[in-house]
Amino acid sequence: MEKEQLEELYERIAELFEEGDYQSIRAIISELEPFDLSVICEELEEKRLPLFFRMMAKDVAAECFSNMSSELQELLIRKMSDTELKAMLDELFVDDTVDIIEEMPANVAARMLANSDPVTRAQINQILNYPKDSAGSIMTTEYVRLDKNMSVMDAFTRIRRVGTEKETIYTCYVTQSDRTLVGVVTAMDLMLAEPDTLISDLMETNVIFSTTDEDKSSVVKKFSDYGFLALPVVDKDNRLVGIVTVDDAIDVALDEATEDVEMMAGITPTDKPYLKAGVFSTWLARVPWLMLLMLSATFTGAIISAYEEALSHLVILTAFIPMLMGTAGNAGGQSSVTIIRALSLGDVVPGDILRILWKELRVSLLCGVSLAIVGFFKAIWLDGADTLVAMVVCLTLFATVVASKVVGCCFPVLIKKIGFDPAVVASPFITTVIDALALVVYFAVATALIPNL
Amino acid sequence: MEKEQLEELYERIAELFEEGDYQSIRAIISELEPFDLSVICEELEEKRLPLFFRMMAKDVAAECFSNMSSELQELLIRKMSDTELKAMLDELFVDDTVDIIEEMPANVAARMLANSDPVTRAQINQILNYPKDSAGSIMTTEYVRLDKNMSVMDAFTRIRRVGTEKETIYTCYVTQSDRTLVGVVTAMDLMLAEPDTLISDLMETNVIFSTTDEDKSSVVKKFSDYGFLALPVVDKDNRLVGIVTVDDAIDVALDEATEDVEMMAGITPTDKPYLKAGVFSTWLARVPWLMLLMLSATFTGAIISAYEEALSHLVILTAFIPMLMGTAGNAGGQSSVTIIRALSLGDVVPGDILRILWKELRVSLLCGVSLAIVGFFKAIWLDGADTLVAMVVCLTLFATVVASKVVGCCFPVLIKKIGFDPAVVASPFITTVIDALALVVYFAVATALIPNL
Repeated sequence: MEKEQLEELYERIAELFEEGDYQSIRAIISELEPFDLSVICEELEEKRLPLFFRMMAKDVAAECFSNMSSELQELLIRKMSDTELKAMLDELFVDDTVDIIEEMPANVAARMLANSDPVTRAQINQILNYPKDSAGSIMTTEYVRLDKNMSVMDAFTRIRRVGTEKETIYTCYVTQSDRTLVGVVTAMDLMLAEPDTLISDLMETNVIFSTTDEDKSSVVKKFSDYGFLALPVVDKDNRLVGIVTVDDAIDVALDEATEDVEMMAGITPTDKPYLKAGVFSTWLARVPWLMLLMLSATFTGAIISAYEEALSHLVILTAFIPMLMGTAGNAGGQSSVTIIRALSLGDVVPGDILRILWKELRVSLLCGVSLAIVGFFKAIWLDGADTLVAMVVCLTLFATVVASKVVGCCFPVLIKKIGFDPAVVASPFITTVIDALALVVYFAVATALIPNL
Repeated sequence: MEKEQLEELYERIAELFEEGDYQSIRAIISELEPFDLSVICEELEEKRLPLFFRMMAKDVAAECFSNMSSELQELLIRKMSDTELKAMLDELFVDDTVDIIEEMPANVAARMLANSDPVTRAQINQILNYPKDSAGSIMTTEYVRLDKNMSVMDAFTRIRRVGTEKETIYTCYVTQSDRTLVGVVTAMDLMLAEPDTLISDLMETNVIFSTTDEDKSSVVKKFSDYGFLALPVVDKDNRLVGIVTVDDAIDVALDEATEDVEMMAGITPTDKPYLKAGVFSTWLARVPWLMLLMLSATFTGAIISAYEEALSHLVILTAFIPMLMGTAGNAGGQSSVTIIRALSLGDVVPGDILRILWKELRVSLLCGVSLAIVGFFKAIWLDGADTLVAMVVCLTLFATVVASKVVGCCFPVLIKKIGFDPAVVASPFITTVIDALALVVYFAVATALIPNL
């Protein structure tokens, strides 16, 4: 539903609350998607929230709850009785419960665990134990498990019996008694098959899966490559421990992309939507990187100071410093950002370093030559430099653009190779190296070409 | 399948081709997912490709084909007879056919259209006519349509009859005779219902949909918000014209994120994976932005030249220029990138401008104060400046960080408001404004505080 429509609905609900017309509120609730209800909950006055929430059907309430901000979730849980909490936890999918527990203060998390049934509690604890960003940490344990000796009719009976509690029924997993994954069957296969067909004759045995410790961006890539609706997650012994569904994969894809973008811009990623994040936490996510980059500029300052003498002789040289550093930074940034994104999409792997280097070298020569030519005439016509200074600018442009692109493409690959996230580490390091490089080249060329500098 | 496993398989297939053991190649093919086959096709020697491709089952071949690079697709189409092409087009989904046609040279595209059956051809032409990046351009026309007077049993009969040709059978759409969309039913609803239930009693009538001209990033947001497997696309008269399936939504999400990242780094986005893009086209995607930013540095050069006199008196001022411009650029970049991403995710809309401004103002004051304090002591201790120069640096840092963040957050919103894509326009403009701003503030503060400059 569009934002404006929801605003109107919210106004209407606020009015109905004033009038005490709960019947009409209930009627509106019954028409809405859980996500839209969660948006309205965020707007609602705090005192009305518990009542509004209690008017929802149990399953809708649970889905609406899992879409709320953690502040609202905490507030509602604190207002719930143990019985209410238990009933809602029964409706929630395990992966959503885990996401919520991770954001709650310790006492609320403990209360949630205490009110989960023992089997679910064990599953929650298991998922909580997988490393952050792993397939294990985003999976759910609610999938339909079939036996290969079942008939299609048996399978339908099982799906009808357990289906409503499962996160998806459209992909069913065939396991042995020790939970080893041996095949998958889709609901489509089942619907198109004769009722007495055996699952073993119907199932696909070449199963694409993820392992519990696999990075979640690799899980997203599998969804994008294969177009699945769910992906099984297995442990080291090939035993099925959970599944990731495609709706969670989309959320991971969007979150990961936002994280990449933020880290490239020197921001520590947060899970919160922009307007929900506090001023202090936004400051905390930004200031360390600004500080780091500012301190690393000590190098560039020192290089300039070392050539103080030369600069005071020919002050026009100073006028080109921002342009040269800027162009080098932009050229290097293009390469590093391209490679970081390609690494994170799996389009390139560290083993491709030579192919990457060879390509960037050729691109950088083309870029370097084009910029050097334009830069030469710009220096003479727009900046009023003489031919000698324009020559210095031109040569520096060429050399720094090539060097920056090479540095920009190699660094992310090396950082990935030694096991760190290129998006985090690459940016400040590359900036510092390229800035220093641009200045050193500039002054070296200048002192070499211009007599008596 | 992992990259290493596929490499091994490819080696094995190359060997089998040498030995002429086509039986074993066929056996390997039958075990593989279409996506994995497409990866192998990319590696295969060109002369072996048509034979390898012909060994696949018809439906697998079509899906494999839609995953190939456009170079390979073109090569294969040129080798196909009209009969072969016709057979493959029958197997392809309409949205995949459209994607392929868009990349083909005119004569190949014309041959593809000529070999499509008339109904499909009309649908292809319709989708080709929707604007780039719209919901209409990414939808497919192959969905299951039900009538509200059908029973669940009738619905199953229809699904079994038409299901294999549809892109999904898990969400079915209920329309009136004029194609007006009146409801949706999921396969799960159908499976859990009694056979004689009427569709009109089962269907959800509050349907979340997209319109044909809606931006595709808004389509992705709906998938993420509501967790659907497919989303109906309707025209202005609420008539159902197609659906977008979740697997396409994931690809759009990943592509859009890559586009955002590339545009923020000053690169014209391309569809091609990094290693597939040619050197010349990579150069073409990068050099205009480098050129533009280099030319825009004419302003900063001019500002520095205007203060040539002052700088030659106190050369240490020059040493701080890169640090001040860099910090301002980083501070502004953090804000603009955050807002651009939030706009593209739909977390904020232009109407939120005042809330954004108020938040950035507070964050920028915090950042400005922290950086100014650290910058002051850095100037004295690390850069050997005197107190007066350090004071100038400190005040400039504060003022430029605040100004840059305000500029950085407002510009993307304004650009969005007037209907352009903030990711394209914002970056070079913001950089130029912030660079100039930093220098002007710096020299203004310096000439005001330092006597006889």
